[in-house]
Amino acid sequence: VKVPSAASTVGVVGAGQLARMMQPAAIELGLTLTLLAESADAPAAQVIPDHLVGDYRDLDVLRGWAGRADVVTFDHEHVPPEHLAALAAADVVCRPGPAALVYAQDKERMRDRLSAAGFPCPHYVVTSEPAVVSAFAEQVGGYPVVVKAPRGGYDGKGVWYVADEDEAGAAITRTGGRALLVEQVVPFIRELAALVARSPSGQVAVYPVVETIQRDGVCDEVIAPAPGLPADRAVAAQRLAMEIAGELDATGILAVELFELPDGRLLVNELAMRPHNTGHWTIDGAVTSQFENHLRAVLDLPLGSPAPRARWSVMVNVLGGAIPTLTDGYPHVFAREPRLRVHLYGKTVRPGRKVGHVTAYGDDLGDLRSRARHAARWFSDGCDDGGEGSR
Amino acid sequence: VKVPSAASTVGVVGAGQLARMMQPAAIELGLTLTLLAESADAPAAQVIPDHLVGDYRDLDVLRGWAGRADVVTFDHEHVPPEHLAALAAADVVCRPGPAALVYAQDKERMRDRLSAAGFPCPHYVVTSEPAVVSAFAEQVGGYPVVVKAPRGGYDGKGVWYVADEDEAGAAITRTGGRALLVEQVVPFIRELAALVARSPSGQVAVYPVVETIQRDGVCDEVIAPAPGLPADRAVAAQRLAMEIAGELDATGILAVELFELPDGRLLVNELAMRPHNTGHWTIDGAVTSQFENHLRAVLDLPLGSPAPRARWSVMVNVLGGAIPTLTDGYPHVFAREPRLRVHLYGKTVRPGRKVGHVTAYGDDLGDLRSRARHAARWFSDGCDDGGEGSR
Repeated sequence: VKVPSAASTVGVVGAGQLARMMQPAAIELGLTLTLLAESADAPAAQVIPDHLVGDYRDLDVLRGWAGRADVVTFDHEHVPPEHLAALAAADVVCRPGPAALVYAQDKERMRDRLSAAGFPCPHYVVTSEPAVVSAFAEQVGGYPVVVKAPRGGYDGKGVWYVADEDEAGAAITRTGGRALLVEQVVPFIRELAALVARSPSGQVAVYPVVETIQRDGVCDEVIAPAPGLPADRAVAAQRLAMEIAGELDATGILAVELFELPDGRLLVNELAMRPHNTGHWTIDGAVTSQFENHLRAVLDLPLGSPAPRARWSVMVNVLGGAIPTLTDGYPHVFAREPRLRVHLYGKTVRPGRKVGHVTAYGDDLGDLRSRARHAARWFSDGCDDGGEGSR
Repeated sequence: VKVPSAASTVGVVGAGQLARMMQPAAIELGLTLTLLAESADAPAAQVIPDHLVGDYRDLDVLRGWAGRADVVTFDHEHVPPEHLAALAAADVVCRPGPAALVYAQDKERMRDRLSAAGFPCPHYVVTSEPAVVSAFAEQVGGYPVVVKAPRGGYDGKGVWYVADEDEAGAAITRTGGRALLVEQVVPFIRELAALVARSPSGQVAVYPVVETIQRDGVCDEVIAPAPGLPADRAVAAQRLAMEIAGELDATGILAVELFELPDGRLLVNELAMRPHNTGHWTIDGAVTSQFENHLRAVLDLPLGSPAPRARWSVMVNVLGGAIPTLTDGYPHVFAREPRLRVHLYGKTVRPGRKVGHVTAYGDDLGDLRSRARHAARWFSDGCDDGGEGSR
C-alpha cells in the first residue's frame, strides 16, 4: 500500500463543482490532481488537465484510472461500496476509506451506527411495510413522517413527507418495494451544520458552526457563524462533529447537518464525507478553505486554521434561472458589489440547478445577506424581484 | 476587432508563475484561459488545460495561437514590439496594447516619456560612449552610476553598478556596443511599489502602497502597507501610479516601483504592466487579488475592491535552495504555522530561482515577518539558520 505524501497525485472521483473547487487550492499548494470525470465538459474537467472521462460504476474503468493516483478521494458518495472494496483489495488508498464512507452512503447504517454510539438522532424505523410506518407515526405523535431512500439521495432527492399510510405505501412502491428509512418530523427551530477536517493521523480542525437555510430541500443560504447561537451550543455542535469524525474514522471533510430544537438540543440530520455546500463560505471567509483542508487531510499533512476571517460570512447559492449565460451578470453585479466574491462552476444552466455561489463577508449581517441575495438572483434572472416566484 | 466580454477566452502569452496564479481567479469566476507556453511543464501549463507549446518569438506561432483567444494578455514583457504590431494588424485585441506595453519593455522610452510628462524620475542619460558616462557621473555627484540595458532586463538582470569609466566601457562592450541607459545612484531610504488595475473604460483600482525589500536585485519581501509611510506620501504614490496608468493608457495591472528619498520625494524606478511580485500579497491579503483584477480589467469588467483584509500582510519569496522537493517542507511548515498561506509554483528548483512565496497576515508585524521568513527559508533549505549565507 502506498503512503501518500505532499508529492503524491490525488485522484478525485467525480468532476462536479466540489472537485472543481479543489483545483485552486491544489494550484496554490503545488499539489497534483487527477480526475475521473463523467464528461469532458464537467465543471472540474474544464480546469484539471489530467482527467479521464469514464464511468465510476464500471469497476475496470475505476480501477484502471486509480493507477494514476497515489490516493483517491471523492466529489460525491455514489461509488458503489463493492467497488470501493475492490479498490482497497488492489491496494488503492481511499480517503475517506470504504469503512467510513459507507456511513455517508447509507442513511440506514448511519442512523444505526450513530444511535448505537449514543449520538442524538431523530426517532426512526426501517421498513417496507406501510402498517409499520403507521405504527411508527403513532409513536412519534402521528403523521406526517419523513421517508428516505437509504442510498442515493442528495439535495432533497429521495426524501418525501408522507401524510398517511396510503402515501407511505406509494413511496415504498415507487422505490421498488425496498425498505425505507422512516423518521419523525423533527420540530426544529432551524438547521445548523458543523464541519470538521480530519486527517488519518487523527488531527481535527473544526470550523465555526453555521446556520443553513434550505429552500425546496436544497441548501440556499449559509450564515457563518450561526447568528445568536449560544456559545455552549456551538461547542456542543463542534464536539458532536469531532466525535462523529473519530467514531467513524472519517478522513477529509466531514459535514454534519444538525437540527436545533426549541429546548436547545441538537439532533444529527445528515452526514457528508467530502467538501460540502455548507462550507463554501470558507473559501473567502476562513483562513483555510474546506477544499484546501480536505486535500491536506487526504495527504495526511497538518491542517490549516479553520478560523473565520470576518465577523460574518454569508453564502448564497446561484441557481439556474432565466439567464443561460451566467457571466452576463458580471457588469451589473461587479459594478454594484466590488467586495462580493463570486464563484461560477462552468455548468450549463438548468432551472433550479446549483450553478455557482456568492459570498459576502463583513460586519453588518443584514446588509451582507441582502447584497448576497441580490447578486445571486441577478445571475439567475437578470433582475431582483425581491421574491422567490421566478426561481 | 472583437469586443471582449466575460464569456471571452483570455489568451496569456507565457506560462510562468504569473499566468499560473491567474488560473485560480479564472476558475472561481468561470473565465476561460488559453496559454502560449514555453514548455509543457511550465508552471501555468501544468494547470491550464488549453495551452499550446510554442515560441512567442515566432510570429507564425504567436499569430496562429492568438486565434484561440478573444483577447490577449501577458505573463511577461518579452514579446517583440513588431510582433505585437503584427497582432494588432491582424485585429487581435491585446491588453495592455502595444502602444502602452512598450513603456514596460523599453526603459529608455519609459524614462523619456515619463520625464517629458513631468513624472519624477532619476537623472539619466542614454549613451554608448564611456566619456559621456563620465560626464554624466560628474553632474550627479560622481561615480558610481547605474547602467541598464534598455530592453530585456528583469529581476536585476541587465543592471550594473559601474565605478569608473573603464567599467562603463566594459558594460557597453558586454552589451554589444549598444546605447545603455545610465542613471544616478538614487540615495533612497527604501523602495516602495504602487499597484493599480486599470480597465479599458478607464476605471482604476489602486492597492495600498507596499514596501519592498530586495536582496541581490531580487524582490525578497513585501510589506503591505509600507510601515510608517505618512498618509500624504502614500496618497502621492497612489496618485503617481494612477496618473502613469492613465498617461500610458495601461490596461490590467500596472506596477510602479518607487524610490522613497530622505526628503520624502518619490522617484519612479521601474514599471511592469502585468501582475507583479510586489502584489502577490493581494491573493491572501486583499479583497480582490491582483490576478483577478488583471483578468477583470482585460475583459473590461468592473474592478474588485483592492482594500486590504488585514492590518498587515507580509509576503516572502521562496527561492530555490538545497531542497529539491519543496513540498517536503509541508509537514514542518504547516504544523508550525497553521495560519500561513503557501504558494508553490511547480518549478524545478534551481539556486536563487523564485519557486514560490508565503504570505502571513495579521496584527503583529514583527511576528508576521519572522514567521514568513522562517517558512520561506525552510522550504529552501530544510532549516532556518537565521542568516543569508545558505541562499
